[in-house]
Amino acid sequence: MEKTLRGACIIGQSGGPTAVINASAYGVIRAALDAECITKVYGAAHGIKGVLDDKLYIMDEEDPQELEYLKNTPSSELGSVRYKMEDPDRDDTDYKRILEVFKKYDVRYFFYNGGNDSMDTCDKISRYMKKAGYECRVMGVPKTIDNDLWGTDHCPGFGSAAKYIATSCMEVSKDARVYDTGMITVMEIMGRHAGWLAGSAALATYCGSGPDLVYLPEVDFDYEKFCEDAIEIYKKQGNVLIAASEGIHDKEGKFISEYGSKLAETKDAFGHAQLGGLAVQLADELKKRTGAKVRGIELSLLQRCGAHLASETDLNEAVEAGRLAVESAIAGETGKMVAFERNDVDGKYVCEMMLLPLESVANLEKKVPREWINEAGNNVTQEFIDYALPLIQGQPERPTEHSLPRYAHLKKVVAK
Amino acid sequence: MEKTLRGACIIGQSGGPTAVINASAYGVIRAALDAECITKVYGAAHGIKGVLDDKLYIMDEEDPQELEYLKNTPSSELGSVRYKMEDPDRDDTDYKRILEVFKKYDVRYFFYNGGNDSMDTCDKISRYMKKAGYECRVMGVPKTIDNDLWGTDHCPGFGSAAKYIATSCMEVSKDARVYDTGMITVMEIMGRHAGWLAGSAALATYCGSGPDLVYLPEVDFDYEKFCEDAIEIYKKQGNVLIAASEGIHDKEGKFISEYGSKLAETKDAFGHAQLGGLAVQLADELKKRTGAKVRGIELSLLQRCGAHLASETDLNEAVEAGRLAVESAIAGETGKMVAFERNDVDGKYVCEMMLLPLESVANLEKKVPREWINEAGNNVTQEFIDYALPLIQGQPERPTEHSLPRYAHLKKVVAK
Repeated sequence: MEKTLRGACIIGQSGGPTAVINASAYGVIRAALDAECITKVYGAAHGIKGVLDDKLYIMDEEDPQELEYLKNTPSSELGSVRYKMEDPDRDDTDYKRILEVFKKYDVRYFFYNGGNDSMDTCDKISRYMKKAGYECRVMGVPKTIDNDLWGTDHCPGFGSAAKYIATSCMEVSKDARVYDTGMITVMEIMGRHAGWLAGSAALATYCGSGPDLVYLPEVDFDYEKFCEDAIEIYKKQGNVLIAASEGIHDKEGKFISEYGSKLAETKDAFGHAQLGGLAVQLADELKKRTGAKVRGIELSLLQRCGAHLASETDLNEAVEAGRLAVESAIAGETGKMVAFERNDVDGKYVCEMMLLPLESVANLEKKVPREWINEAGNNVTQEFIDYALPLIQGQPERPTEHSLPRYAHLKKVVAK
Repeated sequence: MEKTLRGACIIGQSGGPTAVINASAYGVIRAALDAECITKVYGAAHGIKGVLDDKLYIMDEEDPQELEYLKNTPSSELGSVRYKMEDPDRDDTDYKRILEVFKKYDVRYFFYNGGNDSMDTCDKISRYMKKAGYECRVMGVPKTIDNDLWGTDHCPGFGSAAKYIATSCMEVSKDARVYDTGMITVMEIMGRHAGWLAGSAALATYCGSGPDLVYLPEVDFDYEKFCEDAIEIYKKQGNVLIAASEGIHDKEGKFISEYGSKLAETKDAFGHAQLGGLAVQLADELKKRTGAKVRGIELSLLQRCGAHLASETDLNEAVEAGRLAVESAIAGETGKMVAFERNDVDGKYVCEMMLLPLESVANLEKKVPREWINEAGNNVTQEFIDYALPLIQGQPERPTEHSLPRYAHLKKVVAK
């Protein structure tokens, strides 16, 4: 057992929002406020930029009830950031600044709540602090709707997004089949390189009513085969519902969304192409070939901030991941990310938590196994359903006001 | 009191789906099954087309529990149709056929569940039957997310769609303000000529977090003024969220969506232009002028089939409207539509039901009063909020299976 390390802590949030990233922040903040050795709890405004800019909110000043509401508030309440840290061996300017701010506030604990890129940031900070001889325990708390973090069975944020997608696909499936005059509907789902979210659309079909065809980026997309498959079902049923990942690409690796979309020109701070317009493009192509009425629906931001449909399983795991990060750091751990392991008992879903070295997860991507996708590459298999279904279970209590969601109202008192 | 009319009944559904149109169908079917004078209850497959095609489902054969599930099943479970009936004075072919089918099944009650166009269909059938000397009581049960039916305070379907829109705007509002690097988000909301749905986006702002600007089709859209307003807020806040009706148009009446969208070429069976692509177009224009990261989000079908967010008030009223149509017809009424009147008691919302002659509502449109929109034409006033807020109240019990919605599974036994 390490000796107790006394000092302040910082929690930061990074990357794209999820329905439960604030639940993890709540887990961290609550556990840190309750820990005797943690003298002050700061929330960094807009992730690591809040540290660099010395803009830290004092969480100790918040109303405990408002902090509770964080569990039901989507998006990153402390503000998010997409900022790629330089390698400290090449340029350590930012790291020096971080160390300066850490020293100023006597920060001995740093918790970073994010996806692949954030775990990389976390890892670099951890290594720099060690090298600088400054004792600070650094822990990663995972989040990503994409579910593509390496080394963990699944990731907080995924279950809720999957539930949003499955529910929406179920509802649209009813609507898209209502006329007898023919209708082709394409739903575009997030997930740049991994098809976990697109695959979740199949949960709707499994549970009663959903897409006929599901396309994941793990399989090269064959445009002609796609049209054949869709038109065959359309001719048989008079309608067809298709779910496609934004990241589907041809065998040369070119995104299908780039075939015809003007939105695909821009790249974000990490050099990832920004995708969009795929659903309308696929729908238009099928319209050309069939003359059918078509509709392209992009789930867009809705799928990642749909907190009113959060999975209780996901929400609870998100809180616990935050809490475990704090408890483990107090116990002496550093340079680790909280991860999940599935250890089902008698066929009943059981999730256990563990810690993984940050360097073993940073910048890696976990994709859907090829064998969880059918041979034709146009749907998922029962293995995928069995994997995803437990993660969307349960409806948590959602506080409302006027029958609309009641979100946290934080005071966000800035530290001097 | 009229003498009791014995015979079968038909219920048909028409027009665009809503979250609660099946709740009205349930109200009709349940009341009709329970009525002694109604000998058989038929559901027409795809509205009036099911009558013309002699494709009627026998509702008496359905499991009562499955009929209960109709209350939670979005879209039109019997199938919908968009079919414009000729004026019987010009061409009575369809009406002769309807009479033939009515006689075949001894149909003495006809309930039609739809919007403006459906009330017109209903009215024509009612007048034709009277003229033909065939006793059949014809009643309209209103539905439309657009809330544009004349003569009724509001319309079943609107409250649930408004709740879906307000909740989604609230969630997106959190997501769209998460980065400190600037973000402009435009949400496109249904409503061709009336701004009830677009205005409902403002409920999110009223309840904590929502759009900064709201555009309704009741006010001519000034593109330059819009850009000025949006950019001013963007510069002040670093982000701006805009909600716009698909039906906004310039002072010459040209739809803004037609300025640049290729989707706007087609027209539906009623000659209405099909709108789409507006959000992306407005967002692109603001991107050109600011260089900001932008996102256009179209709520598309999601807003009309979002049954998991149904308003309990709306759902209950939808069921009651169906039930009242049956009870009134049995009592001797015909050629009427069920309508709502608001008679608040001590500031508490109270909705009472009444009957209106079909010809007084058919083909008319109710728009948002100009004085419920602010002078600048870029938001609604408190009057609008006070009108809409009671309609989204309450969360009904939603049956689920595997934590996803459990919809009705009807046998749909076709009558010989």
